Amino acid sequence: MSTEAVSAPPALARTRALLDPALRRAVARLDPVNRSISEYHLGWVTADGTPREPAGGKAVRPTVTLLAAEACGAAAETAIPGAVSVELVHNFSLIHDDVMDGDTERRHQPTVWALWGVPAAILTGDALVNLAQEVLLPRDPQASAVLGSAIREMIRGQTEDLAFERRDWVELPECRAMAAGKTGALLSASARIGGLLGGGSAAAVDALGAYGAHVGMAFQLVDDVLGIWGDTSVTGKPVLSDLRARKKSLPVTYVLSAGGSPAQAIADWLAAPEPADGAPETELERIADVLDAAGGRDWALAEADREIGQAVQALDSVPLAEPAREELKALTRFLTHRSA
Amino acid sequence: MSTEAVSAPPALARTRALLDPALRRAVARLDPVNRSISEYHLGWVTADGTPREPAGGKAVRPTVTLLAAEACGAAAETAIPGAVSVELVHNFSLIHDDVMDGDTERRHQPTVWALWGVPAAILTGDALVNLAQEVLLPRDPQASAVLGSAIREMIRGQTEDLAFERRDWVELPECRAMAAGKTGALLSASARIGGLLGGGSAAAVDALGAYGAHVGMAFQLVDDVLGIWGDTSVTGKPVLSDLRARKKSLPVTYVLSAGGSPAQAIADWLAAPEPADGAPETELERIADVLDAAGGRDWALAEADREIGQAVQALDSVPLAEPAREELKALTRFLTHRSA
Repeated sequence: MSTEAVSAPPALARTRALLDPALRRAVARLDPVNRSISEYHLGWVTADGTPREPAGGKAVRPTVTLLAAEACGAAAETAIPGAVSVELVHNFSLIHDDVMDGDTERRHQPTVWALWGVPAAILTGDALVNLAQEVLLPRDPQASAVLGSAIREMIRGQTEDLAFERRDWVELPECRAMAAGKTGALLSASARIGGLLGGGSAAAVDALGAYGAHVGMAFQLVDDVLGIWGDTSVTGKPVLSDLRARKKSLPVTYVLSAGGSPAQAIADWLAAPEPADGAPETELERIADVLDAAGGRDWALAEADREIGQAVQALDSVPLAEPAREELKALTRFLTHRSA
Repeated sequence: MSTEAVSAPPALARTRALLDPALRRAVARLDPVNRSISEYHLGWVTADGTPREPAGGKAVRPTVTLLAAEACGAAAETAIPGAVSVELVHNFSLIHDDVMDGDTERRHQPTVWALWGVPAAILTGDALVNLAQEVLLPRDPQASAVLGSAIREMIRGQTEDLAFERRDWVELPECRAMAAGKTGALLSASARIGGLLGGGSAAAVDALGAYGAHVGMAFQLVDDVLGIWGDTSVTGKPVLSDLRARKKSLPVTYVLSAGGSPAQAIADWLAAPEPADGAPETELERIADVLDAAGGRDWALAEADREIGQAVQALDSVPLAEPAREELKALTRFLTHRSA
């Protein structure tokens, strides 16, 4: 995997234009409090409710949904309720995860709980995940069931991630299963729901679901690399942040599972009591070097390439319409070339 | 409204026998962590996972669902997925509300967040509300939409309730609207979902929904009376607990809205800064007396009677099957005669 940056595919801008009005209409169905907190979280207004230059996320999941519908020969418009619902679920998980992880900033802004407290963040997250189903259900109950099972998997993934924090050792297959739930499930559902709303065949919907699952795993592998070796200006996170949090990420569990003296060094570090004022920077740099020398970084990037290959293979395994199929492929390159 | 206790209607025991196996099967679909926390919360196991003599709630909402299906001429069994889903939503709200309210005990046991922390409580609540829709959706998407709109109303109600805590004055209509969301919406949906699954006519389903909404409001009125004047041995809450929390409950907002010197006395009390070590018992007793003398208690109990009358009227406004209709009426008497 190369390190050059890949510019944002045109599909992302096209999606935003289709998604935004529908997403705003959906959020407007909430009570005034949860509506305005959601609008802040989505980057549409400042904390006091003043409209601002929108500064939300990349809307990757809704883009996957709309392209998947097009890949099944439908107009992107047919899948808008699906696109809205996956974006709502994604933001539900961000708001609740920020509480659980104690994160006070997201996209350089204070998080919802940091501004309005934990109860408000719990309620706004609850409101968004319920709204997602209220938007999708009348459009297609089958798609709604796919979303429900993805939400269950996301919750399982986040639950395992929190449990791993309290453990000194995590096996690689466990870590993969966690990432498949936490990141893969919603990306897979995003593609599958687009296929369903686009009237795709069962084979096309399954292939799209496989595409999303592989893209999700590739995305997580790259994210884990950036969490250890990433540049703060790119990631927006403090340098070495995942090591500081002792996260049993995929590169870490790979090195642990490979055994030998690097595994022992990492295991000793994880088992040692943490200094009250946090680990010194030099110690974290030493651990990053051990992981790198043991092949943790190269393995993760090679695995991400392999997952992308499988995602592309899934798309090529069934008849799908162009240019949507090519745009779905371009999206994978964008997602996994974030200066990794 | 009299003060004699009314024994539990036989319908509650009959419901438990139908509900429990299906509820246990549903909860078993969750990942192991959220499953065992749910089983603890539902009173099936101790904190270490040991099975115990079940000690859950009264399962009022599922009983309403099953009786509503019978009232539409169906077997109670047809509505089991609905009964399971409303019980799951109820328990989602309890687990999240306990976090928001900082309550450390429920049914004389430590609450989920008190035992496993806030992140675990957030995740288990999320898992239960999603599971509710996963159970109901394949059975009846229309019922699932009714449940989604009830969840939205519950979240609105809880959001308003929290906002009221930070205000010195709440109008009675605002307080009613809050209670309609927080308590009325799910009871109304429970009855409506039972009617839908039981194949009831649109008129029957609407009448059942009205019944549930009125029962919910009556229940909340009685609950608010018990929160001020209730006996700890009956309520399981500390005496004067709602006054201690400065809750703008229905009796309090009634007295505020009625004006005059009692309203002024209550307003002064709410506006005064709270002593750091909490209000002295004598002060709270004085406030309870002011509320009582101003008719707060009598008004609330008369309103509860009026709501019950409307609930019964709704049941009598359409053709419904016996004995289910009578059992639905008996349930209202049980719910509102908890030594109020």
